[in-house]
Amino acid sequence: MKASQGVEWGLHLCMLLAFAEPHQTVDATSLAEYHELPLPYLRKILQALTRAGVLESVAGPTGGYRLARSADQITFLDIFSAVEGDQNAFRCTEIRQKGPTGLDQKCYPAACAIAATVWAAEQAWRDHLAGVSLFDITDGLTALAPPGQHELAITWLTKHTRA
Amino acid sequence: MKASQGVEWGLHLCMLLAFAEPHQTVDATSLAEYHELPLPYLRKILQALTRAGVLESVAGPTGGYRLARSADQITFLDIFSAVEGDQNAFRCTEIRQKGPTGLDQKCYPAACAIAATVWAAEQAWRDHLAGVSLFDITDGLTALAPPGQHELAITWLTKHTRA
Repeated sequence: MKASQGVEWGLHLCMLLAFAEPHQTVDATSLAEYHELPLPYLRKILQALTRAGVLESVAGPTGGYRLARSADQITFLDIFSAVEGDQNAFRCTEIRQKGPTGLDQKCYPAACAIAATVWAAEQAWRDHLAGVSLFDITDGLTALAPPGQHELAITWLTKHTRA
Repeated sequence: MKASQGVEWGLHLCMLLAFAEPHQTVDATSLAEYHELPLPYLRKILQALTRAGVLESVAGPTGGYRLARSADQITFLDIFSAVEGDQNAFRCTEIRQKGPTGLDQKCYPAACAIAATVWAAEQAWRDHLAGVSLFDITDGLTALAPPGQHELAITWLTKHTRA
């Protein structure tokens, strides 16, 4: 089971945008340069985040991307789901209905107990991601980052944001 | 993000074997027939479960597969990990170290706060799966299954188990 690489990119670029002023934008090319990411695929991630209402896309010469709401209102689950979709990782194909002991489909009104158990675990995973906002992380990140890196990031942002 | 279909198969076939007597085995061909699964791929799942110590493979004309320990000692996580491996779904490629503000690798002794958050959610998912044993489900399954199905399954098992 593997999450797509775009999840990592989405989380990092939203985190970067959380350090910009709310009205400021950063264009896709600059975002790609910041983490050395391939621009065409990064654009798809940016579009997915915009469609999901996590980012806001501003058109025009001073345009670019910014968070669609404040960092404390955007959770890790919002970003993860925007990139990966919100389907369960475990897909139940109802194999309990097949084979020599399978009954007619209408005999199975309740979800399979096996699938229900695995989906409950996925819900625990979602609940955890939904309980952490971008703000929760940025708030402690200055202390966690190597000395000097936060200042470098802010200096870079100052040069690459558009108002 | 998608779990492989083998996880569903592994969970269902272990659940079936939990209804057999501890010393009894069921051969791979019968297990494939029970859920209408393709035998060659099912064999790979059976081998993975055996390697992980969830199943025991008995060789010879009366051979087959049985649970390697009692149903209350086999968790959903044991089966999931046996089939999918135990790597995290989220892979951190350390993009924080890249680009114009990246520092030397040795400046990052601590795990990335973003990766640590996502991995903590995966741990919540694992904890949930580790808290449910095959016995927990079989114990309530008779009541949950459509009327008559449990009896059909036991009759089928009686015909297909080897001692």
